[in-house]
Amino acid sequence: MANITKKVSWSSRADESGATGEGTPLLNGSEQPRHSRQDSLRGRPKEIPHNEKLLSLKYESLDYDNIENQLFLEEERRMSHMGFRCLEISRWVVCGLIGFLTGLIACFIDIVVEELAGIKYQVVKENIEKFTEVGGLSISLILWAVFNSAFVMVGAIIVAYFEPIAAGSGIPQIKCYLNGVKIPRVVRLKTLVVKVGGVICSVVGGLAVGKEGPMIHSGAVVAAGVSQGRSTSLKRDFKIFEYFRRDTEKRDFVSAGAAAGVSAAFGAPVGGVLFSLEEGASFWNQMLTWRIFFASMISTFTLNFFLSIYHNKPGDLSNPGLINFGRFETESVAYNLYEIPLFIAMGAIGGLLGALFNVLNYWLTIFRIRYVHRPCLQVMEAMLVAAVTATVSFTMIYFSNDCQPLGPDHTEEYPLQLFCADGEYNSMATAFFNTPERSVRSLFHNQPGTYNPLTLGLFTLTYFFLACWTYGLAVSAGVFIPSLLIGAAWGRLFGILLASITTTGSTWAVPGKYALMGAAAQLGGIVRMTLSLTVIMVEATGNITYGLPIMLVLMTSKIVGDYFVEGLYDIHIKLQSVPFLHWEAPATSHWLTAREVMSSPVTCLNRIEKPAKLCGLILRSQLIVLLKHKVFVELARSRLTHRKLQLKDFRDAYPRFPPIQSIHVSQDERECMMDLMEFMNATPYTVPQETSLPRVFKLFRALGLRHLVVVDDENRVVGLVTRKDLARYHLGKHGLEELQLAQT
Amino acid sequence: MANITKKVSWSSRADESGATGEGTPLLNGSEQPRHSRQDSLRGRPKEIPHNEKLLSLKYESLDYDNIENQLFLEEERRMSHMGFRCLEISRWVVCGLIGFLTGLIACFIDIVVEELAGIKYQVVKENIEKFTEVGGLSISLILWAVFNSAFVMVGAIIVAYFEPIAAGSGIPQIKCYLNGVKIPRVVRLKTLVVKVGGVICSVVGGLAVGKEGPMIHSGAVVAAGVSQGRSTSLKRDFKIFEYFRRDTEKRDFVSAGAAAGVSAAFGAPVGGVLFSLEEGASFWNQMLTWRIFFASMISTFTLNFFLSIYHNKPGDLSNPGLINFGRFETESVAYNLYEIPLFIAMGAIGGLLGALFNVLNYWLTIFRIRYVHRPCLQVMEAMLVAAVTATVSFTMIYFSNDCQPLGPDHTEEYPLQLFCADGEYNSMATAFFNTPERSVRSLFHNQPGTYNPLTLGLFTLTYFFLACWTYGLAVSAGVFIPSLLIGAAWGRLFGILLASITTTGSTWAVPGKYALMGAAAQLGGIVRMTLSLTVIMVEATGNITYGLPIMLVLMTSKIVGDYFVEGLYDIHIKLQSVPFLHWEAPATSHWLTAREVMSSPVTCLNRIEKPAKLCGLILRSQLIVLLKHKVFVELARSRLTHRKLQLKDFRDAYPRFPPIQSIHVSQDERECMMDLMEFMNATPYTVPQETSLPRVFKLFRALGLRHLVVVDDENRVVGLVTRKDLARYHLGKHGLEELQLAQT
Repeated sequence: MANITKKVSWSSRADESGATGEGTPLLNGSEQPRHSRQDSLRGRPKEIPHNEKLLSLKYESLDYDNIENQLFLEEERRMSHMGFRCLEISRWVVCGLIGFLTGLIACFIDIVVEELAGIKYQVVKENIEKFTEVGGLSISLILWAVFNSAFVMVGAIIVAYFEPIAAGSGIPQIKCYLNGVKIPRVVRLKTLVVKVGGVICSVVGGLAVGKEGPMIHSGAVVAAGVSQGRSTSLKRDFKIFEYFRRDTEKRDFVSAGAAAGVSAAFGAPVGGVLFSLEEGASFWNQMLTWRIFFASMISTFTLNFFLSIYHNKPGDLSNPGLINFGRFETESVAYNLYEIPLFIAMGAIGGLLGALFNVLNYWLTIFRIRYVHRPCLQVMEAMLVAAVTATVSFTMIYFSNDCQPLGPDHTEEYPLQLFCADGEYNSMATAFFNTPERSVRSLFHNQPGTYNPLTLGLFTLTYFFLACWTYGLAVSAGVFIPSLLIGAAWGRLFGILLASITTTGSTWAVPGKYALMGAAAQLGGIVRMTLSLTVIMVEATGNITYGLPIMLVLMTSKIVGDYFVEGLYDIHIKLQSVPFLHWEAPATSHWLTAREVMSSPVTCLNRIEKPAKLCGLILRSQLIVLLKHKVFVELARSRLTHRKLQLKDFRDAYPRFPPIQSIHVSQDERECMMDLMEFMNATPYTVPQETSLPRVFKLFRALGLRHLVVVDDENRVVGLVTRKDLARYHLGKHGLEELQLAQT
Repeated sequence: MANITKKVSWSSRADESGATGEGTPLLNGSEQPRHSRQDSLRGRPKEIPHNEKLLSLKYESLDYDNIENQLFLEEERRMSHMGFRCLEISRWVVCGLIGFLTGLIACFIDIVVEELAGIKYQVVKENIEKFTEVGGLSISLILWAVFNSAFVMVGAIIVAYFEPIAAGSGIPQIKCYLNGVKIPRVVRLKTLVVKVGGVICSVVGGLAVGKEGPMIHSGAVVAAGVSQGRSTSLKRDFKIFEYFRRDTEKRDFVSAGAAAGVSAAFGAPVGGVLFSLEEGASFWNQMLTWRIFFASMISTFTLNFFLSIYHNKPGDLSNPGLINFGRFETESVAYNLYEIPLFIAMGAIGGLLGALFNVLNYWLTIFRIRYVHRPCLQVMEAMLVAAVTATVSFTMIYFSNDCQPLGPDHTEEYPLQLFCADGEYNSMATAFFNTPERSVRSLFHNQPGTYNPLTLGLFTLTYFFLACWTYGLAVSAGVFIPSLLIGAAWGRLFGILLASITTTGSTWAVPGKYALMGAAAQLGGIVRMTLSLTVIMVEATGNITYGLPIMLVLMTSKIVGDYFVEGLYDIHIKLQSVPFLHWEAPATSHWLTAREVMSSPVTCLNRIEKPAKLCGLILRSQLIVLLKHKVFVELARSRLTHRKLQLKDFRDAYPRFPPIQSIHVSQDERECMMDLMEFMNATPYTVPQETSLPRVFKLFRALGLRHLVVVDDENRVVGLVTRKDLARYHLGKHGLEELQLAQT
């Protein structure tokens, strides 16, 4: 520690303003981005710039590297072996809690949706039955449409007016968070409440949406809340888990929460772990992974346990997720070698349809950004979609004449007889007049012959456009289930056609099997997840035999889809201009070096001596805390006592550091000095300026950094590489392209 | 690139001699460690030091950081986008090939073992049947023992005399390789041949071993071979995949190979991926993981496909692995909430038994290191174990009077009637007179009542000690199956006792279920793997319902076991004094800084100018290649043309660089200078000397480094941190301890 008091580079500026190179003075003005963010949150449009060739400057990065300043090191050094063990135990406890609460929330959503949807379908069904004989089914239609619109209105209002960030599935946001981008308000309690309420409304409102995606977001919020041991919204601080109040620890818990969410949604604990790793982990840590798995297991178990009580079969632990694909028994799932090319072909179809879906949704999103940006318009659009969904469904059911005999075991929950003979029901209604989860299951498992091809074809077509229109509305809703449903419908159609055109097909082309493959293909074509999705599908199927075909299908659909357009989540992330870091630097970027990439000049704070060597790094947020606590070394009256600042003060302020404007610095104080030595990170990671971009990228990504100091040969600070400097480069059609930075 | 020609730190010295601080001159003497390694390979004893408080200096590190010198950067910059795409495609092709070949090898081993074991058991069975009536069963015993010893002798001879590294399961070695330690000869073709031959011999020889562990090693060798596009042993260079001839790329493929091995062994492709990640990956890369998964899938599919043909059921793809747990049907696997505490109790038992196993094996290994180090002794010990195994098995069968009626479907492969009545068979023989895989399956699935408790108890006891004695012999063999078998036996016993002592137990305490839990507990208690083992077990079971209980069992057994002693693989790694880096730095190591940890002085090579700034890093192996190609800048006749050295020259020499002694440097040449600028890595990662150990550790681990340069405030080299400097510190009973470095 001999010679550290020379030059401190102050980093936050570059993180905010990127490579624009404007020198922002130290203690004023630099809060403007934070301010503008607060404003822009209300109206969603301003949040989304129109152009995906931009990177927004308003997003800050999270810092997954520990700030190793003297305070931190002293605390760590004081801690005994026992202390570390206690910390480890509390991490496990927190993960258990996260799993338990996530499971409970899933359970709550499921039960409320079941009950409300039950009431809705029962009322509409009775109404339809009443009017089928006497005529006047238009009244039933209106009733249905009003029901739907009312629910959706409530859902859209709470989202659009109270918490716009709760819109959609939340998966893109969680992806960004795990990637290291601070999306404002994404893990707050209020977001969770709106999300849960919103998803219930939109599912009960009959939209073409699922309640699975939002579970991932919910799990993440639960994790962020539980692990901090306090709620800023409720103004309660339980004074526990204070050690976890920093980005690194919080991110680990949020990974566990997201995994627990996936696990509860699909009954897929391993898939959940893989999802978190695929999206978030820049490096794999055995104990962390094991904890994440624990949270996932607890979550699916909790859900399963409480649902079994709700379903009056206590202790029956065979329904581990919100969506249940039903049991694929070994005999019916067997596949032959010659079916593999067929599955691959289905993967290609899924990729094509997925790309089409994404392109349509991209255009729609652009349209929405331009013209549908006022909350009241958003609510109205959501209600319109709800009414149209009801109308289309009703029309389809009305004009369908696909009557099927009621099964002996009455597997249909709400069999609509309509114009069918007694003892028969309308097959189209099974698909439309039902929660999407039930529809998926019936497509997978109903006996061959339950649906006729025309029904399936029409259903695919209409549901495809409905789902596409629905995704991106100001309601909380996921895209997993609609994708599965579309895929299951055309997959089943594929199976039926196959059975009819081949001579032996009727023996092996079990429609349920092809419905499953179609579902995988369609989902893969839309979201483009890889390993985690395979495992999720396999776990949801409850049978491992399908591993290889599902993988091949997902691989094909990803390759085909990627040829045309990115995945749906990535499109939405790009449209939000988030500085998202992918796994690797663009392939052809070796000719770029740190010198060309970095932001400069860096705001440097000098201390006493002259020679301008790097001696440490300090964050804006830390300086704000210092200012707030008036930690001045007063030159004249140096004996003045002030309370020694501790790590606790920084933790208390985390993560909502006050804006600089709120801190009053008197004229006298402006003359004072601060001693930053204790607070700065004396050993920040550095790179020489000749370092190639891929090397910088690797260091940045592997360690989850927020800033990387670029030094010259003499260890003088020449610049700072931040996330935005790296995220700017991407491979476009004409090789390496540079995105623009904009204050959106 | 203005001022790089100042000081090059030469790294390999410190990597070899660690912190001993001896200044090794540049071009002589430093090869002594490499030399002594070559010698010590023949006799295994010298390879293993007696004390686990040592770190061996003879292991070099692998370098998972690209050497970004000018040659490399130029090549990367020249490469077009298309070039990178082609590379990516060839990576996929290589992974596909790895999966395919690994699957084929697994298939080969399986079929050969089946056939040979079939012959053996048939002959012995006929012999026993012949002598049961007339007396003289001792002849049968001798026949059996001779059969076993003969096979084991062959297996032990090829291992002990030709390739000692092929002994055991190979998992510890692959763990080390993936961790970044270069274990000599571990991924050579010869090792593979010996391994495959050896495992066939030891399994057919009736030892208490499995053929699953060795598959992981085999997969890794296949990967290392295929990805390099040449075989040094066969002296064939196919001139393909030259880009992959460096540690980074090779490691990625070896991960895929190991995963493919797991996948083929247990029919667990996801488990395989997780195994590779758990053991190897310091950071997670989406595309890499996806490729690894692809290799795993192809491997299990290949095995399944060819085995289905061998079993005359072409196209039946339901036997995905070497070990097949059989199908656990949904009805029989259901478990109740109140069974969970029972499972946890079983986990604790498994942890205790596993710790006992490990301690006994540890003592045995120490004994072997001291007294059984000559190959002929090793062969004799192996033969002794084989004979004893046969004798014990025979005695157990002989004195058992547990006769069971032959089932209607004759599930027993080699039912031994012995002294049982007609239509009955000896139940003890099912466990002992069978390949271990079949025994496991029958313990899982045979009807309740098939085994009586005494049989199971005796079997557990004898097999426990046999397996413990067997592991560590100079034969290729895995410990997975014996562990599963021991666990399944006492687990089934547990289930039977449970059913008999509880009133309702007979309805829910299905013995097969408890056998499965016991197997998981015992295996977890011995090997202490976490996530990957859970997934492997779940996949091998083919049913996801068991996920939570298996996880809880494995967790408990790990916690209980870790309280007493480390996992079996870790014990063996420690006994080999391998500088293995764990996931995180020891918890209480924050008071250590880079200055205290690093090795110094560093051998520095100066160029022209005086000021001693860091300008790059060059490896010993690179210098050797330079010397070999006589790349001198001759001062007097500076115009002399010599061929410009290219990356290809380094790749051709990789990974078996010639020893320095083999290079003749004439007296004239000794006066010459070399220009290292093109070859050195101009931007090595550096840390200031005040950096805390955990921070150094994190950087090292996350990037898979081999050396980390420690610089002072003025960017002058003050030391070098290598793997051994970090691996020295570990948490012992009295807090942080420092291991000794020894030239073992």
